[in-house]
Amino acid sequence: MNAPDAPALPARATSPLLSRRSDQTLAEQLAAHFAERIRHRLLAAGARLPSVRACAERHEVSPHTVVAAYDQLLAQGLVEARSQRGFFVREIRRELPTAPLAADPAPHRVPVDASALIRGMLGGNSQRPGPGLGTLPASWLDLPMLHSALRKVLAEDRVTGEAAASLHYGEPAGDRRLRAALSMRIADFGVRAGAGQIITAMGATQALDLISRTLLTPGDAVLVDEPGWSVEYARLTQLGMRLLPVPRGPDGPDLEVMEALAREHRPRLYVTVSVLHNPTGGMLSLSTAHQLLRLAEHHDLQIIEDDTYAHLAPAHAPRLSALDGLRRTFYVSGFSKILAPGWRIGFVAAPAEQVERLIDIKLLASLTTPALLEQAMAICLEQGQLRRHAERVTTRLDAARSRSVQLAHEAGCSFLCPPQGLFGWVETGVDTESLAQRLLDDGWLLAPGSLFHARRQASSCMRINFASSQDATFWSAFQRARDALLR
Amino acid sequence: MNAPDAPALPARATSPLLSRRSDQTLAEQLAAHFAERIRHRLLAAGARLPSVRACAERHEVSPHTVVAAYDQLLAQGLVEARSQRGFFVREIRRELPTAPLAADPAPHRVPVDASALIRGMLGGNSQRPGPGLGTLPASWLDLPMLHSALRKVLAEDRVTGEAAASLHYGEPAGDRRLRAALSMRIADFGVRAGAGQIITAMGATQALDLISRTLLTPGDAVLVDEPGWSVEYARLTQLGMRLLPVPRGPDGPDLEVMEALAREHRPRLYVTVSVLHNPTGGMLSLSTAHQLLRLAEHHDLQIIEDDTYAHLAPAHAPRLSALDGLRRTFYVSGFSKILAPGWRIGFVAAPAEQVERLIDIKLLASLTTPALLEQAMAICLEQGQLRRHAERVTTRLDAARSRSVQLAHEAGCSFLCPPQGLFGWVETGVDTESLAQRLLDDGWLLAPGSLFHARRQASSCMRINFASSQDATFWSAFQRARDALLR
Repeated sequence: MNAPDAPALPARATSPLLSRRSDQTLAEQLAAHFAERIRHRLLAAGARLPSVRACAERHEVSPHTVVAAYDQLLAQGLVEARSQRGFFVREIRRELPTAPLAADPAPHRVPVDASALIRGMLGGNSQRPGPGLGTLPASWLDLPMLHSALRKVLAEDRVTGEAAASLHYGEPAGDRRLRAALSMRIADFGVRAGAGQIITAMGATQALDLISRTLLTPGDAVLVDEPGWSVEYARLTQLGMRLLPVPRGPDGPDLEVMEALAREHRPRLYVTVSVLHNPTGGMLSLSTAHQLLRLAEHHDLQIIEDDTYAHLAPAHAPRLSALDGLRRTFYVSGFSKILAPGWRIGFVAAPAEQVERLIDIKLLASLTTPALLEQAMAICLEQGQLRRHAERVTTRLDAARSRSVQLAHEAGCSFLCPPQGLFGWVETGVDTESLAQRLLDDGWLLAPGSLFHARRQASSCMRINFASSQDATFWSAFQRARDALLR
Repeated sequence: MNAPDAPALPARATSPLLSRRSDQTLAEQLAAHFAERIRHRLLAAGARLPSVRACAERHEVSPHTVVAAYDQLLAQGLVEARSQRGFFVREIRRELPTAPLAADPAPHRVPVDASALIRGMLGGNSQRPGPGLGTLPASWLDLPMLHSALRKVLAEDRVTGEAAASLHYGEPAGDRRLRAALSMRIADFGVRAGAGQIITAMGATQALDLISRTLLTPGDAVLVDEPGWSVEYARLTQLGMRLLPVPRGPDGPDLEVMEALAREHRPRLYVTVSVLHNPTGGMLSLSTAHQLLRLAEHHDLQIIEDDTYAHLAPAHAPRLSALDGLRRTFYVSGFSKILAPGWRIGFVAAPAEQVERLIDIKLLASLTTPALLEQAMAICLEQGQLRRHAERVTTRLDAARSRSVQLAHEAGCSFLCPPQGLFGWVETGVDTESLAQRLLDDGWLLAPGSLFHARRQASSCMRINFASSQDATFWSAFQRARDALLR
């Protein structure tokens, strides 16, 4: 595998965005660059484009080229010129003016920036792995293992003929073989659930969505970790829920704040990433876990434990679901982070008495999930391939983390939690919204810290992916951008 | 392919449910039979079990066996004995008594029976294709075609290596190649949409779910056809919407009723299966389509056109989306009914200004969909394989329909709409709830007509699947059950 572990470190001679060897003129390329950012809402409506001079300097082109590019954006209706003040991004009309239907009441609005972030992260078209990536680099994954499992399933299918997985909707709860394998796998983490308590889903994302739809009614209050994963905030907000952020420290959530919020707002649910928390990388301590469950019992809270990073964590890390015995916890995990993002396989292990209702909601949301891929995943689990692969990845991640942490320290950054797992939560000392904007101009996509806050408070912290921030070029760009902001 | 076109017609000597050659005793088998029906809620809480004598007669066992079976159900807590009156199904406790969280306010309740129906239909474990089946029999599908396409994708993936579909989340809107192929395919139906207007989903089911979540807010009123597809009723109800049923005749919805409802309730949306309507098989006439769109414009309604049965319909059947040019219509279809139920591939072609919001909602609901399967589907479309397969299936379905219609007529049934497509809406002359119960005891799963009514009104009509109701044994059982009810 051609890995970015020890990348070459050439000094870049020209702007990474523009190429003189392209079929397009430099002005066209520059206009396309801004147009894409506007369409993906990485440049918000009302934002001012850089001055012609500043833009020309940054991209190492003539001011004439910048003027030509801005003219193209004007013609496309993406920006407007304001006399004496420069060029501003226009509101993109997304609804039919004649269709009040599409007018969207505030509690159901999708926070635009979470979506822009995911789209950027999913983009996958970029030349190099981004330091803000939410996954392992594709080169760390094991395509031959996946293909071999799929070919096995196809061969079995050919023999079974009419009973082939492709020709039937499959079981509502998900493929039986995979559920049996999952039941054994999560026992490694101390989570005891029979195959009958497990429901597969389109990634952990759909699992989280299904549980929310099963348990909540619009207007309900939900406790969430802060900082936390913005897509979870966005989903709950879109479903009409009220978010109650609980500060997340190195050992877990602040239980005093949680207690007070629970008393005042009577939330029904707490959603948390207990192990290798996104974005801080923190782990729940055993004593916090115990107290948290007592608090949940006292206030009759249900808990969703999102264990998306399970396979990168030490097996002994305490899981709430293990302590609780899945009485009021829902255990969610999946395989997008460790094996096959494109297969979209996740699952939930649920309290026994919630299983039927969860399946009902799954049926309404998507009927079933593709058994073919689930059977192939079962093969990876049954034969210990996943375990061996996870061990290899963890070793490699340890090495990458050492290097990334060293570079981060050299760049003057510190970490909120002891670095572990995939993500580090880096104290930069400057506003990361401005920092991210500057780095984006250099071609580095990073999520500003505010995206990990439920109400988008400005933050001087940001998330880095240890596997893909070993590139010293990135840290040089980081230092330049930060120094410019400190000036 | 081993097809049920001309089934053998042996007289059954014993109850189809019980076998004397099983490892289980007859009492155990009988108890398991009832237990499954109770768990799947095909026997509702409060329902009385048949008397011991009646049950013994029906299943051709001794009364002692029935008593032993009922005893087992008692021990499992599934039924209760009431003095002098017999055995009654107990309420299955689905929520923790200590968890008010799970208490479910009325507007979000999933109609239990729709779920039971789908589960029954998906079951797929039954020995013979059921006359109430919602799909083509698996034996009519073309597994080698699907496998060959998948193998091609795997081979391409191996060459692309790190860019392989399995290793990335993929494009939020869905695989680009499939969307291009879909854009060309729906042009055959007169629906003009660029690939950029198409979003893939986990079957038409998720497409419908995503559109509802994009357009609606809990409490909104939605127009639906009646009779109509109960899962759509259940989904909208679960999302907190108010259903406004519009009677559906052979030419389409009753526009006078629709007009009155629109004026009084100001619905935001109309959801319809315009072509080969489920369950009646009716088609929208051109003039109804035209008037419907004028009405929609006047009342500012958006329309979801669910064209799930597209591939079984004449291409010239008028689509609302074609007339409207996707201004206020969302065109939804998929491949579960014609190619691969297990691949869960559907899509929506949306008005251009709604695309971004739909993608946002898709990202929150499941992030992306499996590109591997979508690319294989693209191959089936590009190479004309789908078209040729659909032609073969349509020819075969025509023959099956002739036979089924003849058997239905001989059994004294009539059809509300001229028989076409996959489903017939059969006037039986008796209450179909009782009829379905009796037929179920004989091993034939059918949906009572009430399931196709938004408020579950009793109905003497029921849906049959022409492809799987050519079995004269079924029609004999049907006549026996109906005659018993008429007695």
